Amino acid sequence: MQHNDFMPNEFITHHTVRMHDTDMAGIIFFASQFRFAHDAWEDLMAEMGFDFDTLFTKETFAFVIVHAEADYLKSLKAGDNLKIAVAIERIGETSFTVYYKIYKSDELVGTARTVHVTVDRASRKKIAIPKRLKSSLEKHAALRT
Amino acid sequence: MQHNDFMPNEFITHHTVRMHDTDMAGIIFFASQFRFAHDAWEDLMAEMGFDFDTLFTKETFAFVIVHAEADYLKSLKAGDNLKIAVAIERIGETSFTVYYKIYKSDELVGTARTVHVTVDRASRKKIAIPKRLKSSLEKHAALRT
Amino acid sequence: MQHNDFMPNEFITHHTVRMHDTDMAGIIFFASQFRFAHDAWEDLMAEMGFDFDTLFTKETFAFVIVHAEADYLKSLKAGDNLKIAVAIERIGETSFTVYYKIYKSDELVGTARTVHVTVDRASRKKIAIPKRLKSSLEKHAALRT
Amino acid sequence: MQHNDFMPNEFITHHTVRMHDTDMAGIIFFASQFRFAHDAWEDLMAEMGFDFDTLFTKETFAFVIVHAEADYLKSLKAGDNLKIAVAIERIGETSFTVYYKIYKSDELVGTARTVHVTVDRASRKKIAIPKRLKSSLEKHAALRT
Repeated sequence: MQHNDFMPNEFITHHTVRMHDTDMAGIIFFASQFRFAHDAWEDLMAEMGFDFDTLFTKETFAFVIVHAEADYLKSLKAGDNLKIAVAIERIGETSFTVYYKIYKSDELVGTARTVHVTVDRASRKKIAIPKRLKSSLEKHAALRT
Repeated sequence: MQHNDFMPNEFITHHTVRMHDTDMAGIIFFASQFRFAHDAWEDLMAEMGFDFDTLFTKETFAFVIVHAEADYLKSLKAGDNLKIAVAIERIGETSFTVYYKIYKSDELVGTARTVHVTVDRASRKKIAIPKRLKSSLEKHAALRT
Repeated sequence: MQHNDFMPNEFITHHTVRMHDTDMAGIIFFASQFRFAHDAWEDLMAEMGFDFDTLFTKETFAFVIVHAEADYLKSLKAGDNLKIAVAIERIGETSFTVYYKIYKSDELVGTARTVHVTVDRASRKKIAIPKRLKSSLEKHAALRT
Repeated sequence: MQHNDFMPNEFITHHTVRMHDTDMAGIIFFASQFRFAHDAWEDLMAEMGFDFDTLFTKETFAFVIVHAEADYLKSLKAGDNLKIAVAIERIGETSFTVYYKIYKSDELVGTARTVHVTVDRASRKKIAIPKRLKSSLEKHAALRT
């Protein structure tokens, strides 16, 4: 996985690692990192003006995640303060890819990527990314350097 | 909390403690025990003939949990094989209480209790427990000994 | 459960409800509220100067939760911004009780309570609350009004 | 991602989708699928004779997950009964890859892959996969067809 250096369109959010994010091995359970990433995506959606209540009950479209992946560069522990940078890596016709870089004290400690397909809420069939969403995503498109 | 010895109406299910149920202290994170209990309640609902897809999308009523509590008698570790006994402790007009006893090799290691209110799906207002549900709950009413 | 109005020793922290905190019923899964509470307790521990790495690997004592309970006053949804007030409700010889009040826009939406026993790390036997911890807890003791 | 058809060395385990695995969108939260996969891996470890208590407290080696990925082919709901097939896809010098296929009624509904590095417990440095583990992994090596 190539680590895109996305600047200046990235969106920044923060997370403190919690005890329930860890397991008996003393470090975070690997699936927790996907929650950190999705929390950041939810923050970005809010920043783009998508209200959850509206998004999941009134919009005609919905997102479905069809792929997710993560790399773990450093073990993370409860109490660690993380900075998460999010950017849109790819915008296709009916899907887009969100990319996440996780930092602890400016050291890259993990990355993640989620691929989202836009579907019609009623029929659950793939649809083109709605214009309003597409223009929001474009504002956070990763700039490859 | 009094440990009701409910026999013979109790419903029995099983759970293996997973790594993600534990935290850095090496034992289960306390909230995990509530998941074990609710998993058992879901198994009991299925056994009573309540299909989730129907229950949460087509029924006119819904449940809302208004209280939950748990006692922790022994520390539980990943790999522990648990037996969970479930019974209905109380059936009121608009609410009922589910009681859970968790065993490891026939030793009681924890208990839990959840109080559920029945509400109208549309208005979200309290309603009397529907008859079909009430008769199912009665079949699993705890017998105090 | 009596809602103690604890002022001015309470500790305040914040939480945004996440999609993974919810379930198919559209509101938070009841066990999530216990995670919100424990997150707030972790923030308070940090504020009292207890570093996790030290606490769980170098201290001679440990905490074990022996009881937990919660009341749910309002349904919570993804995106809800919560304020959590934490205070120490009771300090005993070998145990203490932490009490949590959860607010959404200044409305009390839920409460929780956790009972912690202090044990010797090695023997896992109950011990008196260590002095340094006790004096920290006393600074956050709830004042009943 | 290529779907390896591994027969006959695959290990089979089962999982019922729970309410807490779902979110407000009505289907499983994407990170839950990684928990299903890891649960299956834990069952396979148990079957290979690795006891958790020993593995995480007495062995000289440990595993660290350095990469994880999943594909989502069908939306999964609470109550769904899943069959999970696990096999070792690759055995390297200091790492191995576990591959998971998730079925609902014999339809492939999802896949996952986790890459594990073996490290020395004390130094946390990479070490060659211990012989006993390697021979266990080889018994469950995926046969590509």
